[in-house]
Amino acid sequence: MQPFYTRVLAELDIRPPFVGPKELERRRGKPYKARLGANECLFGVSPAALALLAERCHETALYSDPTNKELRDALASLWYRPPADIVVAEGIEGLLHLFVRGCIDIGDVAVTSRGGYPSFDFYVQGCGGRLVHVPYLPSGENDLTGLAEAACRHEAKLVYLANPDNPTGGLLPASDINALIERIPKGCLLLLDEAYADFADADCLLPREASWPNVVRMRTFSKLYGLAGARVGYALADPAIIVAIDRIRQHFAVSKLAQEMALAALSDHTFVADVLARTAAGREHYCTLAEDLGFTTLPSAANFVAFDFGDAARAEAVTEWLEANDVFVRRPTDAPLDRLIRITVGPPETRAYLAEVLLTAPAIKARIPA
Amino acid sequence: MQPFYTRVLAELDIRPPFVGPKELERRRGKPYKARLGANECLFGVSPAALALLAERCHETALYSDPTNKELRDALASLWYRPPADIVVAEGIEGLLHLFVRGCIDIGDVAVTSRGGYPSFDFYVQGCGGRLVHVPYLPSGENDLTGLAEAACRHEAKLVYLANPDNPTGGLLPASDINALIERIPKGCLLLLDEAYADFADADCLLPREASWPNVVRMRTFSKLYGLAGARVGYALADPAIIVAIDRIRQHFAVSKLAQEMALAALSDHTFVADVLARTAAGREHYCTLAEDLGFTTLPSAANFVAFDFGDAARAEAVTEWLEANDVFVRRPTDAPLDRLIRITVGPPETRAYLAEVLLTAPAIKARIPA
Repeated sequence: MQPFYTRVLAELDIRPPFVGPKELERRRGKPYKARLGANECLFGVSPAALALLAERCHETALYSDPTNKELRDALASLWYRPPADIVVAEGIEGLLHLFVRGCIDIGDVAVTSRGGYPSFDFYVQGCGGRLVHVPYLPSGENDLTGLAEAACRHEAKLVYLANPDNPTGGLLPASDINALIERIPKGCLLLLDEAYADFADADCLLPREASWPNVVRMRTFSKLYGLAGARVGYALADPAIIVAIDRIRQHFAVSKLAQEMALAALSDHTFVADVLARTAAGREHYCTLAEDLGFTTLPSAANFVAFDFGDAARAEAVTEWLEANDVFVRRPTDAPLDRLIRITVGPPETRAYLAEVLLTAPAIKARIPA
Repeated sequence: MQPFYTRVLAELDIRPPFVGPKELERRRGKPYKARLGANECLFGVSPAALALLAERCHETALYSDPTNKELRDALASLWYRPPADIVVAEGIEGLLHLFVRGCIDIGDVAVTSRGGYPSFDFYVQGCGGRLVHVPYLPSGENDLTGLAEAACRHEAKLVYLANPDNPTGGLLPASDINALIERIPKGCLLLLDEAYADFADADCLLPREASWPNVVRMRTFSKLYGLAGARVGYALADPAIIVAIDRIRQHFAVSKLAQEMALAALSDHTFVADVLARTAAGREHYCTLAEDLGFTTLPSAANFVAFDFGDAARAEAVTEWLEANDVFVRRPTDAPLDRLIRITVGPPETRAYLAEVLLTAPAIKARIPA
């Protein structure tokens, strides 16, 4: 190993957290018919964002605004908070990278749910951090008591929680999140990943204007707004945290048109309402579909649904059947979530194809109610 | 300071390396008439890239390919090297961030020229590294002997060099770069920033297929290809370095359309030839313009020209005059470069406006030859 590497990198042997659908297609030698494994917006891109793109495309020759000011100003209005509370980055991936780097020295502990969002683990390992994994409850919920206890016991620097959860889609009420915030040590930062919160009932979420000295709320334009490929997300936090993190931020990470598309999408209320309605209808359909198959789904507040196939072996068999029939999904592999398959809500025709494939799955057929 | 920050961040007090033109326009309360300070491609965006953008814009709803495979394959053909030698990131900013993070532990030394590209310094400081600055030679050239000696003396982990240089535009021949590579310690990585090499005579550059165990060559689509706002750059290095750095890479940093636009631009030979010809004509014009004003320019192998105004006071006065007349430029502030103003090559109408403003500058008028 070359002596110019950092101590962490010299000993690091990890792989990227995801194999993306494009790479999977290369490996299998053919495209998917249904791309239901990445929780993208399958109802398209905000038309306002597309119009902006067409209008401004020639400006791609110019550097983006590294302060992201216009987007931050618009977000500030939306959140009833000053722009100083907001940092923009290249998606929640970029935010996780940034905040983990800002907090994790070699040996520092980061607490997260076992089988939760793998990128967090990847970035913690990349900083030489030590991961403490708390198993999900048998119900499939995050164990908030367990997370808080682990944070205290290990004097953790970071706790990661997704709400709505990924991969289950479950939403914990604001009171539970508040209780978690109360319980974690004051010297520990909570990274609250709200990537899917746009699909949840706003009354169940933390208030928009609420702020804590040790909580970072992360949001994205990748889901509701149809801009996953553009790479834009943002975080809300105490302004002192934003000032600090700005010192290690990659200021030119978000492309010019991505910033402007995000800004346009933010006001595209027609598109947003449409995606919300179509997503809700799709979730209903998935719930009925699971029942028709003799199984259940977990309650979802996201743009995907976790189908519960009862045990890991069947979930694995169904996943393989879906793969063989050109349906891309994700299956958690850690207990107790390994009985689940996470399936993105697609448009009716994609759901119809999914239903057709599931109805013929050998691992399911026997269970289909007469 | 919150206890959850890393040791480095807890004590860090630095500012972003650049105030971008958009932010400067906000501060001055009016737009620039000539944006000649960021070395963007002022001849537009590759039409092939724009056609791609129009065709694929709906795919912005989908995540990008985190392996950047198609772009890396195309670059591999261009460079006569395997794709395993290439990593793609969000511009050279992203690459600097990545490689500095991979090499600099707290207290490690990084060597660079005083008054060189400030982002390198920013990222080194962000990792707790110690910067050793080597002054430019009085001629305005990088002091390669000084850089190599500093690297040896301080057991540096990194040396940064831009060739063609920024902010002078000067090109050092491949033999000089080879000699530098020979001289730096084997345990030190050379980050060779070739952002402007597309504008240089290829015969003067290191051979495309050449590789060393401790050299990273960085390239960008921001200059020749007109994609500064899209954020795409790439680095060529020994495959062992690429494998290592991949473990701390933000795999989703480059947007989907940016990857695809870069791929399209790479084959847009008509656009490339046109930009090269227009840039060369503009450099000639700037050389003549400086002579007409009674001054000189430094030889440039880039898309900008360093005007030499003889001393720092005059360079500063001229910069202020340009600013007052809505011309955005950059002036180095460290000796011996503080007598220079770095001006991007723009199209003829922008150059005509620049000439008009310079001809009336009080600090210049007295020197204009009869």
